Amino acid sequence: MSVTVVGSIAFDAVRTPHGGRERMLGGAAVHFSLAASFFDEVRVVGPVGDDFGADEYAVLHGRAVNTDDIEHVEGGKTFFWSGVYGHNMNSRDTLETDLNVFETFDPKLSEDSKACEVLFLANILPELQLGVRKQCDQATFVALDSMDLWINIAREKLVQAIETVDCVILNDSEVELFTGEREVVQGARKIIELGPSAMVVKLGKYGAALVTADSSFWIPAFPVAFVADPTGAGDSFAGGFVGAIATALQAGEDVTAETMRLAMAYGTALASFNVEEFGTERVARLTAEEVVERVKELQRITSFDAEKKLALT
Amino acid sequence: MSVTVVGSIAFDAVRTPHGGRERMLGGAAVHFSLAASFFDEVRVVGPVGDDFGADEYAVLHGRAVNTDDIEHVEGGKTFFWSGVYGHNMNSRDTLETDLNVFETFDPKLSEDSKACEVLFLANILPELQLGVRKQCDQATFVALDSMDLWINIAREKLVQAIETVDCVILNDSEVELFTGEREVVQGARKIIELGPSAMVVKLGKYGAALVTADSSFWIPAFPVAFVADPTGAGDSFAGGFVGAIATALQAGEDVTAETMRLAMAYGTALASFNVEEFGTERVARLTAEEVVERVKELQRITSFDAEKKLALT
Repeated sequence: MSVTVVGSIAFDAVRTPHGGRERMLGGAAVHFSLAASFFDEVRVVGPVGDDFGADEYAVLHGRAVNTDDIEHVEGGKTFFWSGVYGHNMNSRDTLETDLNVFETFDPKLSEDSKACEVLFLANILPELQLGVRKQCDQATFVALDSMDLWINIAREKLVQAIETVDCVILNDSEVELFTGEREVVQGARKIIELGPSAMVVKLGKYGAALVTADSSFWIPAFPVAFVADPTGAGDSFAGGFVGAIATALQAGEDVTAETMRLAMAYGTALASFNVEEFGTERVARLTAEEVVERVKELQRITSFDAEKKLALT
Repeated sequence: MSVTVVGSIAFDAVRTPHGGRERMLGGAAVHFSLAASFFDEVRVVGPVGDDFGADEYAVLHGRAVNTDDIEHVEGGKTFFWSGVYGHNMNSRDTLETDLNVFETFDPKLSEDSKACEVLFLANILPELQLGVRKQCDQATFVALDSMDLWINIAREKLVQAIETVDCVILNDSEVELFTGEREVVQGARKIIELGPSAMVVKLGKYGAALVTADSSFWIPAFPVAFVADPTGAGDSFAGGFVGAIATALQAGEDVTAETMRLAMAYGTALASFNVEEFGTERVARLTAEEVVERVKELQRITSFDAEKKLALT
């Protein structure tokens, strides 16, 4: 059994109030892969250029990510993004986006990648997501991420892609843009009505919500002492979340609401490690024990006893 | 045993994306009182003018709030505030603030109000908070709210007031303004170092955090279907939180971390009812059963099983 992820592989340049990096490994598929690698075999599909070399592969191989379907475009340059985070870290400005080889990306999946049980469609053109989804027709759990750009200019294809997946992962402002609903649950339910059984709404530094047709679940971001760089937090979340679900499937379980809640905690844990340092630096040397311990700590900091009787009047 | 609250009693005019009111009962002490009234006897201390009449008293008496220490200033007008909420409801612009009788407010507490076991110092001049605190010298649990204005212009007195209380309740931007710390836990701990044993950090529509010297607890806002008017949500939260603690004290318990966590859920429940309609309209006809049910629902939407074993690699 394995997880396939299709999406961007990038070099990022970032500045945050705590420093910056001129060039670091990034991209949605990379952050997702590293996070999901704690749970299952991960195969990453995405394009790179001549500037992507042994150092970058070493990070992925360090977490046993299968890179056979990374497509090396001869003479091309890897996707480059640079941005600056504002004071509160919940907003960022893009300085530069050089799509490079990503601009003409047409995902080519090997038979092994197509045979995945779990698929994550990271944020790419909805039409490409739809094509990949069709190729991975044995997948029992498929999640999809997107962004405001596609909601604005490729809404119809995005709706078609959403209709084919089990879970949509967006942030709260994207949900509002897409549905016109201000409240998280109401907006998420409009998306669920398109077909998915669940929706994850990312709330940035405030955590995330899981919404199904008849329930919601809320988890805060793990309160790390120091946020160095939020880049990739959402994709690390997705990797932990989708990875945990893959593990449950591998154990022969159905994807229940309870499984997805625990997966939300794993996603939250992975995202929190991701932000503690720049780019992939922290997750690359993370251990499974640290992940499990943080999930337990998440339970400790969110539990209370509602059964205790108070004398209300 | 009783809870005394000292703070503003007001008429509010608000506009939100869902409508508005030209003149409705409001003020921190009013919202707090109504919420806390579900837990214990509440005595409200604050000034009103000639325009404050039977209709307003009826709302407070409808929840059995003791109004003996509402000070009627002859010839005066009640504090008036008007504001407009922006699209996302997490920010608001003040259009008008007429302090009126509140401008020269000098809290006069009866012996019964001074004899309270629990005291809430709503957002007033820190010097007045300090004076009230000293008068209520038998109180075993004292909480304090404040605002950016006092942090900016009366910091020294605010620090002195904080040194005398058990719990400080501020929103996250106020914590950052006060401490310079961007992270909630780190900021709250700087305030705890001044003397309080706990700090509640309100996160607006994202919920609230409880921070002590060695723990944190996070609870989301209850996801109501419709936010009509956020005015008073923070004070309703404080009323539910402080009220629940008063109930525990009345039952002979210490104020443990577990008690405060459950109190956070009660505060969250009360705040969520408050925002469902304008001003005090919803809480005025709320029942204890509805409050308890919402607290149980809050537990349902935040629980997950971290003990379940996943096979991580």
